[in-house]
Amino acid sequence: MRLIKAGVIGATGYTGSEIVRILSQHPHVQISLITSESRAGEKFSDVHPFFRGIVDDVLYTASKVEEMELDVLFLALPHGVSMEYVKKFAGKESRIVDFSGDFRLASPDVYEAWYSKKHIWPQGFEHAVYGLPEINKKDIASAKLIANPGCFPTGAVLALAPLASEGILSESQVFIDSKTGVTGAGIKPSAVNMFSNVNDNFKAYGLKKHRHTVEIEYYLEKLSGQTVRPVQFTPHLLPVDRGILTTAYIHPGESSTWKSFGADKKEGLVNRYKEFYKEMPFVRLCEKAPPSVKDVRSSNYCDIFVDYDDRTGNIIVISAIDNLVKGAAGLAVQNMNVMFDLDETEGLLHVPVHP
Amino acid sequence: MRLIKAGVIGATGYTGSEIVRILSQHPHVQISLITSESRAGEKFSDVHPFFRGIVDDVLYTASKVEEMELDVLFLALPHGVSMEYVKKFAGKESRIVDFSGDFRLASPDVYEAWYSKKHIWPQGFEHAVYGLPEINKKDIASAKLIANPGCFPTGAVLALAPLASEGILSESQVFIDSKTGVTGAGIKPSAVNMFSNVNDNFKAYGLKKHRHTVEIEYYLEKLSGQTVRPVQFTPHLLPVDRGILTTAYIHPGESSTWKSFGADKKEGLVNRYKEFYKEMPFVRLCEKAPPSVKDVRSSNYCDIFVDYDDRTGNIIVISAIDNLVKGAAGLAVQNMNVMFDLDETEGLLHVPVHP
Amino acid sequence: MRLIKAGVIGATGYTGSEIVRILSQHPHVQISLITSESRAGEKFSDVHPFFRGIVDDVLYTASKVEEMELDVLFLALPHGVSMEYVKKFAGKESRIVDFSGDFRLASPDVYEAWYSKKHIWPQGFEHAVYGLPEINKKDIASAKLIANPGCFPTGAVLALAPLASEGILSESQVFIDSKTGVTGAGIKPSAVNMFSNVNDNFKAYGLKKHRHTVEIEYYLEKLSGQTVRPVQFTPHLLPVDRGILTTAYIHPGESSTWKSFGADKKEGLVNRYKEFYKEMPFVRLCEKAPPSVKDVRSSNYCDIFVDYDDRTGNIIVISAIDNLVKGAAGLAVQNMNVMFDLDETEGLLHVPVHP
Amino acid sequence: MRLIKAGVIGATGYTGSEIVRILSQHPHVQISLITSESRAGEKFSDVHPFFRGIVDDVLYTASKVEEMELDVLFLALPHGVSMEYVKKFAGKESRIVDFSGDFRLASPDVYEAWYSKKHIWPQGFEHAVYGLPEINKKDIASAKLIANPGCFPTGAVLALAPLASEGILSESQVFIDSKTGVTGAGIKPSAVNMFSNVNDNFKAYGLKKHRHTVEIEYYLEKLSGQTVRPVQFTPHLLPVDRGILTTAYIHPGESSTWKSFGADKKEGLVNRYKEFYKEMPFVRLCEKAPPSVKDVRSSNYCDIFVDYDDRTGNIIVISAIDNLVKGAAGLAVQNMNVMFDLDETEGLLHVPVHP
Repeated sequence: MRLIKAGVIGATGYTGSEIVRILSQHPHVQISLITSESRAGEKFSDVHPFFRGIVDDVLYTASKVEEMELDVLFLALPHGVSMEYVKKFAGKESRIVDFSGDFRLASPDVYEAWYSKKHIWPQGFEHAVYGLPEINKKDIASAKLIANPGCFPTGAVLALAPLASEGILSESQVFIDSKTGVTGAGIKPSAVNMFSNVNDNFKAYGLKKHRHTVEIEYYLEKLSGQTVRPVQFTPHLLPVDRGILTTAYIHPGESSTWKSFGADKKEGLVNRYKEFYKEMPFVRLCEKAPPSVKDVRSSNYCDIFVDYDDRTGNIIVISAIDNLVKGAAGLAVQNMNVMFDLDETEGLLHVPVHP
Repeated sequence: MRLIKAGVIGATGYTGSEIVRILSQHPHVQISLITSESRAGEKFSDVHPFFRGIVDDVLYTASKVEEMELDVLFLALPHGVSMEYVKKFAGKESRIVDFSGDFRLASPDVYEAWYSKKHIWPQGFEHAVYGLPEINKKDIASAKLIANPGCFPTGAVLALAPLASEGILSESQVFIDSKTGVTGAGIKPSAVNMFSNVNDNFKAYGLKKHRHTVEIEYYLEKLSGQTVRPVQFTPHLLPVDRGILTTAYIHPGESSTWKSFGADKKEGLVNRYKEFYKEMPFVRLCEKAPPSVKDVRSSNYCDIFVDYDDRTGNIIVISAIDNLVKGAAGLAVQNMNVMFDLDETEGLLHVPVHP
Repeated sequence: MRLIKAGVIGATGYTGSEIVRILSQHPHVQISLITSESRAGEKFSDVHPFFRGIVDDVLYTASKVEEMELDVLFLALPHGVSMEYVKKFAGKESRIVDFSGDFRLASPDVYEAWYSKKHIWPQGFEHAVYGLPEINKKDIASAKLIANPGCFPTGAVLALAPLASEGILSESQVFIDSKTGVTGAGIKPSAVNMFSNVNDNFKAYGLKKHRHTVEIEYYLEKLSGQTVRPVQFTPHLLPVDRGILTTAYIHPGESSTWKSFGADKKEGLVNRYKEFYKEMPFVRLCEKAPPSVKDVRSSNYCDIFVDYDDRTGNIIVISAIDNLVKGAAGLAVQNMNVMFDLDETEGLLHVPVHP
Repeated sequence: MRLIKAGVIGATGYTGSEIVRILSQHPHVQISLITSESRAGEKFSDVHPFFRGIVDDVLYTASKVEEMELDVLFLALPHGVSMEYVKKFAGKESRIVDFSGDFRLASPDVYEAWYSKKHIWPQGFEHAVYGLPEINKKDIASAKLIANPGCFPTGAVLALAPLASEGILSESQVFIDSKTGVTGAGIKPSAVNMFSNVNDNFKAYGLKKHRHTVEIEYYLEKLSGQTVRPVQFTPHLLPVDRGILTTAYIHPGESSTWKSFGADKKEGLVNRYKEFYKEMPFVRLCEKAPPSVKDVRSSNYCDIFVDYDDRTGNIIVISAIDNLVKGAAGLAVQNMNVMFDLDETEGLLHVPVHP
């Protein structure tokens, strides 16, 4: 089988190194190009020394793309910067997986409202396909441009998709309390990711206005097929490298669907989740106990636990992912597999590293 | 001034060592007795080596109490065990601060329902006073037996007390998402508190049935003066030693009180919190950003942030405490200060240790 | 190619789960049996939930081995227990990789002196081959019983092997200051591996008498072909899950070999290390900076840095390994590869997970 | 008693906040001035939010010193910058405690060799007194300018002082393997102190050339009264906030002093250490087990363990300090106490915070 020629654009960050880690072990991929504007000329392993002797490729600037015939480009670039490159590469044959938030939302207007930034390539919204195979695998297969989901939305949408698709969320109060590892804050040193500000510490941030809120709402609405009430999303910063645990609370409105779950709501919920995810290789439903982030570390799994509290009438759903894998680079490769008609799990069945 | 003669009953655990740490630096206290059934005969600093050269007192068994005239006894014992000692010491002059959950709830019946244990001294409920000076300082002053609050309830009740006392909670949905450090799980080695199960990890536990749920509800109801709907309380385990961060979400019902907050709900909320806590030395309201657990580490402060989301109509309140200090030993000493007519802050104004 | 049928004896610990993690991703291995005396009847993923959906095999007791034809047995058992099973399985065709210290030393007498335990199968010493392919690959290829090295000796011997084989160590003072992650202390909960005793903490242990001391000395002597002076070995406990960093200080005696290194001792040292390790796929020499334990985490690499201080006349060598992979399970699989005539790296080229 | 008027110059860093933490709880000190060039005009608690409600003083620029009559100035400034301020303030009445390395070494020449920087005020060396009361309390009492010791030298010199003063070190090989918490790297965000580069990680740095090497050698020589051989000093970076553990190995030369220790070297060593430190309130000798850094966290104690290995003929000494307290701010206050004729322990007897 011919190897897929892949380019990684922007390889100095955590998602950049993670996509290289996964692609370099993928049986059907050849990494043909790795770029970095700031470190071009150096070796990839100079930037990420743990790759020494494994991936020592020289870094180029992104302009090198023009000279090459690549099958797929992974854009691991910041929001706002990424759309420039998507625009630039749009005329090429290469299919694109964009890690940024630039093409995930409903429209350029929504983007500008939540990202406080003018969108420079509104046309992209026509082509872009949200890359979450668990909810829209079919569209991904034929997509030219994939908007790879945000890390929080991946964990939250997977936690709530079965409820949304049943129409349970339309009249419900939804509270999403998420906790992320520090790599979510990026590789640039700052007060936010300094060891002594994070170690033995914990706090909330981005209350009410985190950009992933609108991304979560948009895809829950799509799954619901109707409007849902605004969700309350609150991220917190964990003293761990990787992982997002999402605890979602739903107070379900009085709907006929919800009534149809019968007297044993917990059993009804578990059955719908099993049904919804029965052919999804990366979603593992936990029946005995809620998942922990270390149970999925460095893997592409999303572990989900669903429960119902008779005393309060609330549904509780907890999901765990590795923000750099299922929440970014692993999901990107899963999308690539779908796009190139490979088995969805190819190169992605790494056992979690624990402890 | 005569020194208060204090006894610490059960000193091998984290709260035991913490109460000794605080009392040993208190200007008006003399630690007259430290007990441990399992380590009697050894030195306190053999059990907790960081006290070497500071507190080298020999440990006795609790029976030693009978021979002594102590002003106050701190019972740092497990639930179920503590009530035996409370019963035994009830005839003595010593005032008692009980760290356990044995006398915190509404009645022996409620206790037996949530703790799955027969209560051996129901009479205690008549005398016991809940020891949270921010809500019932007056009763504490004259109490003979203090039921020192649980760690989660301290953080949650302080976060919600101003809302409860305004009557906002009676028709509201309340979700309390709490995250605690590992010392909350006690000092006995187990799979729960092993390093490699906690480090770089995070998970929820005790869903729907944690005993602190009913304690929180009971005191919110007392503050409200009316019934409140059952609250959804979910604890999580953080990879940190100390600290509880509580994120509370309230979807307020349509009440006249809530309407009276006017158009700028956030401002209205902040003002009520300021008013409620204006003379409470250990509650610090955060106006700029939500608190972090390290900001209160090893101190008796409770930092609180209150916010309102116009988009969703929800109130968000975040509180941070050190579970071993404000959530246990520091609060116990604060109660002692009130009981012995000392300034509430005596011996408790330690600056948080950060980082 | 026929798959190698492997049995894992004793799978509840960290090395047990790690060998399953590696074998389950090995292209030429079929895990045919996993045993546990204490958890037999349960699923492997009940014991290690992060394997849910990946390795759900039912656990048997070790007696199941008798009924099967297995190509290789991995014994992940405690010292003292392991020799019983080695003895029991000795008559079978299966080749054995023993993780314990029971057959690593020079003789039963040395074993009994350092392990304070009677050896029950002295005959094993005649067959056992030390399993460190970087120093004795040839013997491993034909071995029936492999004594898989200790985690500290692996890091220390690889750091010092080039010096030992040159005869530099015979008259030298050698100080080996090692720092290990907590998984080295095993999976059984105790005060040693409790989170709050390890987190934000650091200490030395086992001064002067750690059993790995004599193992290090024995193999350095073998490499030297002459006696070496006793080495000073001191382990320390790091607040990390995995990894051993070894800092070795050598004050070289006045030998003609050492003189032959010429004026630029550092250059001479680097060249000898390059030469010694030039065909070893898992040793990576660091030229720019000393390695860190995270650079090799979850991988089979051993990173080594060698330096010389003209001011003091001392050699400094620093090595980093993952104690559960190169220090245990990965090394075991490397040995298996050699024994079954596979490429040494088969199934072992995992990129380190960082961060 | 009149309060000592103290000024803290440079309060945005870790040592700055730590000196304010200690001074604000000192019974005989009034913090009269806190300065910061970069944050002047803001409140101290804006820079360090955990001080909110405790120390809300407005920050001034250092020029404010000129207008005030202060008894003592604490200079928490970087190397190279500090000497400018020492020079500027030299004419004032205020006594100065300088945290930097600018006046610690034997001469401006040595400084320039190790710090690669021209010294702008060589005259300061005439007045400066090294501020380690355990070895030169008398000189400190009358000093006008204190060179507060480096964090590593404090731990290393206290570990070795009894040996040095006996003359044991003159012909010995000395290896000092130190491990420090991240706060030692300062508060400015960089790749060195980023969470994900430090967490679950460990490495050596500054091999052969760390500036503290020469500081350690200089004071060991002073204590010895003769030259000592160059020591090998290697620092490592721990994933903890605070604390330095120093493991020192000494291979003693053949001296008559060493022979006079008799047959039981360990006992001889312990006795000399007890004798040397018998009246030092902050040195705690550990007899049962080596110390850990958490045993001294947030306190001014230095815990020391001394041992002898008959098998190798080596002495091992292990010391633990909190780098921000005994290694910086606590030591500075101890020096201040000595300078102002207070009890050495005044305001410094905080019990370590553990866990």
